[in-house]
Amino acid sequence: MSIPPRGCTGAVRSLPWTNRLPMDRISPVIAIDVMGSDLGPGEVIAGVKGALEDRNDYRIILVGDEGQIRENLKIQNIGDDAPVEIVHASEVIAMDEKPLQALRSKKDASVIRTIELVRTGVADAMLSCGNTGSLMAGSLLKLRPMAGVERPTLATVMPTMRHHIVMTDVGANPNTTPLQMVHNAILGSNYCARVLGINQPRVGLLTIGTEEGKGNETSVEANKLLKAMGEMIHYVGLIEGFQVFDSKVDLVLCDGFVGNILLKTLESLVIQLKDYIRDEYKANPLRMLGALLSRGVFDALKQRLNPEKYGAASLLGLNGMVLKAHGSSNHRAIRSAVGIALSVTGKGARERCLEKIERANAIYQASL
Amino acid sequence: MSIPPRGCTGAVRSLPWTNRLPMDRISPVIAIDVMGSDLGPGEVIAGVKGALEDRNDYRIILVGDEGQIRENLKIQNIGDDAPVEIVHASEVIAMDEKPLQALRSKKDASVIRTIELVRTGVADAMLSCGNTGSLMAGSLLKLRPMAGVERPTLATVMPTMRHHIVMTDVGANPNTTPLQMVHNAILGSNYCARVLGINQPRVGLLTIGTEEGKGNETSVEANKLLKAMGEMIHYVGLIEGFQVFDSKVDLVLCDGFVGNILLKTLESLVIQLKDYIRDEYKANPLRMLGALLSRGVFDALKQRLNPEKYGAASLLGLNGMVLKAHGSSNHRAIRSAVGIALSVTGKGARERCLEKIERANAIYQASL
Repeated sequence: MSIPPRGCTGAVRSLPWTNRLPMDRISPVIAIDVMGSDLGPGEVIAGVKGALEDRNDYRIILVGDEGQIRENLKIQNIGDDAPVEIVHASEVIAMDEKPLQALRSKKDASVIRTIELVRTGVADAMLSCGNTGSLMAGSLLKLRPMAGVERPTLATVMPTMRHHIVMTDVGANPNTTPLQMVHNAILGSNYCARVLGINQPRVGLLTIGTEEGKGNETSVEANKLLKAMGEMIHYVGLIEGFQVFDSKVDLVLCDGFVGNILLKTLESLVIQLKDYIRDEYKANPLRMLGALLSRGVFDALKQRLNPEKYGAASLLGLNGMVLKAHGSSNHRAIRSAVGIALSVTGKGARERCLEKIERANAIYQASL
Repeated sequence: MSIPPRGCTGAVRSLPWTNRLPMDRISPVIAIDVMGSDLGPGEVIAGVKGALEDRNDYRIILVGDEGQIRENLKIQNIGDDAPVEIVHASEVIAMDEKPLQALRSKKDASVIRTIELVRTGVADAMLSCGNTGSLMAGSLLKLRPMAGVERPTLATVMPTMRHHIVMTDVGANPNTTPLQMVHNAILGSNYCARVLGINQPRVGLLTIGTEEGKGNETSVEANKLLKAMGEMIHYVGLIEGFQVFDSKVDLVLCDGFVGNILLKTLESLVIQLKDYIRDEYKANPLRMLGALLSRGVFDALKQRLNPEKYGAASLLGLNGMVLKAHGSSNHRAIRSAVGIALSVTGKGARERCLEKIERANAIYQASL
């Protein structure tokens, strides 16, 4: 193996991790691009601190400006005994940069270095809250799709009133084809199992009108193809918008155009709702007293709809796990994102996905 | 004119309305299909009662089973002096019937009779809360699109925390083309002006990522074409999901697939949210007291997000105005839907739309 990667510096802990082959590792390794966050590397490293308090059976590699990383490790009291290492990267891709151009011109960008750690097998999964386009394009170029998969899909956990669901695709692939929907069902089901602990997730295909023939061309064809997959996918059929939250499905399939719009609209609605309720409560003293007495209601609501709890979307279907957190993720969101990264790094799941994808492609070929 | 239509009976009020040509009419006429509602004709007629209390400068034609209508008029104390007439229809298309089949087999269906009243110019607008597919297919077949328009679009007012917006298309046309997006922008802007009183509504095109080239093929092309329309449309550009509610646009354009999913998901989220908050408040006596003191907060919230206030979607771009209310619309929703119907029946607007559509088509032709 050609590691240590260029720019790799002495680790906080002097473990010779860079000389180990992936097979030798027992505990998982999560690589984190600490640059590119709207709140700066300090917030990301505060999240790392929290994550290490949750679990300590893994290692973290922080990628970015070494000086800033060391400074923030000191602020967070993360000492040399912590399972944390540093890979220096001299460049950062800003939020407003054009992804492909930035990837070409900034060879030492933190996001590229982080992806490299996954590609070379040094890390099992990576997390970034930087420029989404660069992360998606960079990881697609460097990690390549898994055997049999055409395009990766971006999956996210959505908190609802009654339970949690996974939705995919939420933005990686605006023109998802029927076969890609099937791949996404397989990858998303695995994700559901790993992250939410739902072993046979019920899969619904989001469309308009559930009668046969309604919807658009893709949904009609995808519906047929999903049905043809038999037991491999626990497909419950077409669902409409009002069924997204009704506890009958665990995994919602849609194309990346619909999914991205839906996710962003819902997120902004929840934020507006919170602001509105807070402002209304402040309107008079009686209401403020009422708010005080019934505070638990809103704490419960906030807890339910808390976007920090599943603060990262995952790019599924590549040769390596890539997580994307919001640019504005706070330390709590980063902390939970590390938890998600850990839950998806287990062995075996990837092999089962590969096998199912192969079977799905065979069924598709036979149907042509 | 070939009216009275078949099945037309003596009016509640003995005005010889059926002999008047539309040109003779001073006050607008709204035709209402009272059948097909989940709550029965009684609820619809209770809504009519409310609408007549709001305004009395128009007339209403109730279409459906005459016996049931008369009975419910009596229950509501709507007397012979009210500006209400009846057109009998012997059949009803149920919610679960296949639209095209039902239209063919039930020639005397209330929805068809109601559409006929608009087609012949007896009524200025119509309202139904029955089978959506039959209403859309029937009105498209009988009323035909306005000159220059290819497909009608379903528009709806969405209440948000800060203001109200119009969204179109929410389900009439899942594969909206770029030119159809332009038509929808013109029709929707007019609707915004009539219903919300916004004279130069700001139009945004819903997509994913606002950088040039992002989104899907339709959004990229529609963006170019909308820009080419100059002052005719107050186009502010591409918007993402999180901008739907941020007060920067009054009219949100999207294809009917995205719009329908978005609308239904948001509606169900709001319902779930209300249920959740109510249940949480009941969890203990202290919270219940808090709820009592801060009741105004939720009354305000319910008022803001009240779906009854704009309880109908409108099918725009036909030779006649068609409004669709939810199947489960209560009398308050029907009452407000009649108000919307009245606000869109004014003269002049249609001519301005026709003229703009013609100019838009010329610009499009020149761009090819």
